[in-house]
Amino acid sequence: MSNPTFTSFLTALRCAETGAAHDSTVLQSVSHRAGATLLPDYDLDAVRAAVTPEDIRRRPHDLWRFRELLPLDNPLQAPDLGAGATPLLRLRRLGEHFGLTNLWLKDEGANPTGTFKARGAAVGVARAHELGVRDIAIPTAGNAGSAWAAYCAAWGITLRVVMPVNTPDPIKAECVAYGADVTEVRGVISDAGRIASERAAESGWFDASTMKEPYRVEGKKTMGLEIAEAFDWDPPDVVLYPTGGGVGLIGVWKAMRELADLGWLKGTPPRLIAVQAADCAPIVQAWESGVPDAQRPDDPRTVANGLLVPLPFAHRLILRILHETGGTAVAVHDDQLVHAMRQLADLEGVLAAPEGAALVPALTTLLQRGDIGRDERIVLLNTGNALKYTHLVDRPARPPIDPLPA
Amino acid sequence: MSNPTFTSFLTALRCAETGAAHDSTVLQSVSHRAGATLLPDYDLDAVRAAVTPEDIRRRPHDLWRFRELLPLDNPLQAPDLGAGATPLLRLRRLGEHFGLTNLWLKDEGANPTGTFKARGAAVGVARAHELGVRDIAIPTAGNAGSAWAAYCAAWGITLRVVMPVNTPDPIKAECVAYGADVTEVRGVISDAGRIASERAAESGWFDASTMKEPYRVEGKKTMGLEIAEAFDWDPPDVVLYPTGGGVGLIGVWKAMRELADLGWLKGTPPRLIAVQAADCAPIVQAWESGVPDAQRPDDPRTVANGLLVPLPFAHRLILRILHETGGTAVAVHDDQLVHAMRQLADLEGVLAAPEGAALVPALTTLLQRGDIGRDERIVLLNTGNALKYTHLVDRPARPPIDPLPA
Repeated sequence: MSNPTFTSFLTALRCAETGAAHDSTVLQSVSHRAGATLLPDYDLDAVRAAVTPEDIRRRPHDLWRFRELLPLDNPLQAPDLGAGATPLLRLRRLGEHFGLTNLWLKDEGANPTGTFKARGAAVGVARAHELGVRDIAIPTAGNAGSAWAAYCAAWGITLRVVMPVNTPDPIKAECVAYGADVTEVRGVISDAGRIASERAAESGWFDASTMKEPYRVEGKKTMGLEIAEAFDWDPPDVVLYPTGGGVGLIGVWKAMRELADLGWLKGTPPRLIAVQAADCAPIVQAWESGVPDAQRPDDPRTVANGLLVPLPFAHRLILRILHETGGTAVAVHDDQLVHAMRQLADLEGVLAAPEGAALVPALTTLLQRGDIGRDERIVLLNTGNALKYTHLVDRPARPPIDPLPA
Repeated sequence: MSNPTFTSFLTALRCAETGAAHDSTVLQSVSHRAGATLLPDYDLDAVRAAVTPEDIRRRPHDLWRFRELLPLDNPLQAPDLGAGATPLLRLRRLGEHFGLTNLWLKDEGANPTGTFKARGAAVGVARAHELGVRDIAIPTAGNAGSAWAAYCAAWGITLRVVMPVNTPDPIKAECVAYGADVTEVRGVISDAGRIASERAAESGWFDASTMKEPYRVEGKKTMGLEIAEAFDWDPPDVVLYPTGGGVGLIGVWKAMRELADLGWLKGTPPRLIAVQAADCAPIVQAWESGVPDAQRPDDPRTVANGLLVPLPFAHRLILRILHETGGTAVAVHDDQLVHAMRQLADLEGVLAAPEGAALVPALTTLLQRGDIGRDERIVLLNTGNALKYTHLVDRPARPPIDPLPA
């Protein structure tokens, strides 16, 4: 609990489309003219003068060890639920299966609420609180809802969650337990988004919709910072990311860009690869068509709730990032990703959420296309554990038996 | 991956009843004469000469940073799923509610498979593998089954799990996904134990029943080591532990004893307090009767599956530890622990497993009895997250609504 007087190195929020600067000391949503995502900017010269990678290595293993690259003025006063510092696991047996010699998995299932969404919520809720927010509305495909509910509970902020009715039952239970007000809607996340926005506008609540809120991406950015540090600042060649709203992909890209600008990166930033579900793959379709804008699919479907985002708000930025990093986009079918849950569990002892498991069959496609090399350092970003998705996993095959006589 | 030629400081296994030494280089179960738990012994003089607390602090944050106090010869070669290094959270709002100024929660829900059982499995499975075991049978009240299944999958060891039919569904799904053979029995864990033992004896499998296997306690011991380190080696005054089989309580006690013997502890070991469910409280009943042996309750029941252990194998040792540390034992009712799940979630943003939540109502009793002081440093050992127990949590109260027109 040292350094209680910390003040952030945040300088402005920049429009992802035009680069126009916006005041970061007041509450903001999207950019004023373009209506696009706002991304936090830092005084990197001052950061470089204030801290070194070696200083960071010595700090406690939590999100706030990267505080010079986060937007909070009082990170060490924030309620801490233990987000971040997740393990990076070597996948030896799955690697052998695919003929890959250097395959890794960043396991975000170790976060509070069991997913990477906790990182975004830890920073997003804390920054909203610093800016005076006491009422938040959030639409969610699932896990963002429970992560924001947990952090809002810790902060004493009132949260309204709007979610599709087909969100897994454990997520609904989490949100209720954390004291959030939950509305279920017969539709997908875009339907939830319209209801959340309308209610927020009516009632003066802060609308924390994905990428219309400038700070959660900074929490997700810490995944990229941790990956770079784990590889001793010589980042992996490739990161595969299951892309719904795309915040994590944007976060990893932003992490690598800031580290490069700081002069801390020994190698080049990784190629970022977006993986989506075949029946809800707007980014993959736009990528394959070579167009800068994605389109909403007609009948979006997937059992991987986190991938059921018909049109991510930041679709243009996501596509630009794939181009800029030399990445690509891949779609996988639902039966493949469900099979991969079992395959990853059976070979490596990791039961991943369906979104994370989707990265496994993507490897086959990427190898066939020549988009990844067999000896490249490849990181699968598993966004969560499967404990909210065990309805996708088989039960014991045999009927129960009676006890033996005592 | 430094230090690949590490060799453990293990010297022997000692009978918890008689102290008789047993050979730790061959596979062992219980002690030869007394039939009691065997506890690993280390050459602590050699450990003291080999490593300092400051060395440990600088190592990667995983279980193996404590390798000099673990029984493995090749810890750095073991498949790593990321067990350990869990957060210690300050509970400010819950503390205020109870008038406690220094209340903490060690959140074991961040472990792989979502519970502290991963620590025991990480060490237990690795040590079994070192000793040549390739087939294991394990009875479980739930979470040990999935943790052992995950690590056995990673090691390529075949696991047979026997569990009560009323084990939560997500745990069954986990075990199946990890490739374990699952048998459900219409009974409690002691029934599962008899079936697992019989099958293991018939087939030559290793029987990994709680406290009949000498090494999982060493994995659990790392909870105590981490708690001591987090308090800068001046351990808290009190640790509350939800006691089913009691391995974690024994592990924390053993950690503190070894740290004291090493001369690393600045203060005195904590008082250890066992918390059980009112309708399955053999330790509490024996404690209150002042007898050294616990008895199986007539009709053991609780919704907290991990506490549904009618008679823990190590009951005598558990009772001795409560005496030795100046601790006590407390029972709480199921409706209290279910209520506490919601209370902890709502006030602190932590949705604990029912076993961990049981520690919250125990605080009231302990305060009333004068067994804890308002300014003492108190740690609640939350053994897991609630994602396998969301059947105990309410669902949204209102019916779903229709989407707004686009």
